[in-house]
Amino acid sequence: MDSSLKQTLVNSIRNIPDYPKQGVMFRDITTLLGNARAFRRAVDELVHPYAGGKVDKIAGIEARGFIIGGAMAHQLSAGFVPIRKKGKLPHDTVRIAYSLEYGLDEMEMHRDAIIPGEKVLLVDDLIATGGTAEAAVKLLQQLGADIVAACFVIDLPELGGRKKLEALGVNVRTLIDFDGH
Amino acid sequence: MDSSLKQTLVNSIRNIPDYPKQGVMFRDITTLLGNARAFRRAVDELVHPYAGGKVDKIAGIEARGFIIGGAMAHQLSAGFVPIRKKGKLPHDTVRIAYSLEYGLDEMEMHRDAIIPGEKVLLVDDLIATGGTAEAAVKLLQQLGADIVAACFVIDLPELGGRKKLEALGVNVRTLIDFDGH
Repeated sequence: MDSSLKQTLVNSIRNIPDYPKQGVMFRDITTLLGNARAFRRAVDELVHPYAGGKVDKIAGIEARGFIIGGAMAHQLSAGFVPIRKKGKLPHDTVRIAYSLEYGLDEMEMHRDAIIPGEKVLLVDDLIATGGTAEAAVKLLQQLGADIVAACFVIDLPELGGRKKLEALGVNVRTLIDFDGH
Repeated sequence: MDSSLKQTLVNSIRNIPDYPKQGVMFRDITTLLGNARAFRRAVDELVHPYAGGKVDKIAGIEARGFIIGGAMAHQLSAGFVPIRKKGKLPHDTVRIAYSLEYGLDEMEMHRDAIIPGEKVLLVDDLIATGGTAEAAVKLLQQLGADIVAACFVIDLPELGGRKKLEALGVNVRTLIDFDGH
């Protein structure tokens, strides 16, 4: 990835100090999404290793992963399957609990969302500690997905999420990273 | 739109009786999204009148509107702006209340999401009574958007949402419709 694209993407992120709490620098991707050129280039860069029928489905994590994942699925002519917060999917689901900073939450997929052996890209906007992505990987594995890679626009490497996924044997693709939280 | 595409899309929707409550037939779009060919053709059909720089931004309604809207934004090389449930956006917002079947809810956009005069497509997966879409139209108008059209994959015409938006002067584009709820 060329350094001018990386700089374009970094510059398109809005940094919000002390959000959602004191001491945290929130990386707001809505300004990248709203910038037509940055959004298009980010999606094209994320998908280019997977062009040519190498992927059957994009699995996007609610909610920002839906925006990027929908675009990736269309660009790759792949299907899109949502990974949602519990209670949002209308048909038979599989569910997994995962840890948040305070307490537990659960995410779900439709049980028939993946045909065993399908090649799947997992997508979210950002990877931090990787707890959400790790749970999503486990759900996809439970459904028999062949996870080609997990893709994120932003990595916060100090928080260790990439290493957590790599320890599970998952390839991780990210475009830009930021120090700290 | 040719009738074979319409039939392909209708056939790709999963019908779930008595969900979320007795007497309602839920139209589950996840089976369309997961079908690579149906998803791609639906998005291409939705955007084709707007190709060639006629749209600056896609405004997608959380959460399924993010999937379709992300794909539309990428295909049109437009920006994407999210319309979210309250409390989810990190920067300065505008907010509007709207009626659900029981009680009220609120949706938000970032105040700087739209530059006044920008040409915007509003997107969601389905229009029923149109209450959510109407609130989204009012938020977009408050920000000075020039609303080119509101686009939905599915229309439930008996519930009157299309007419509600048209009464506000908004063009409505839908791909398929179903009788009843």
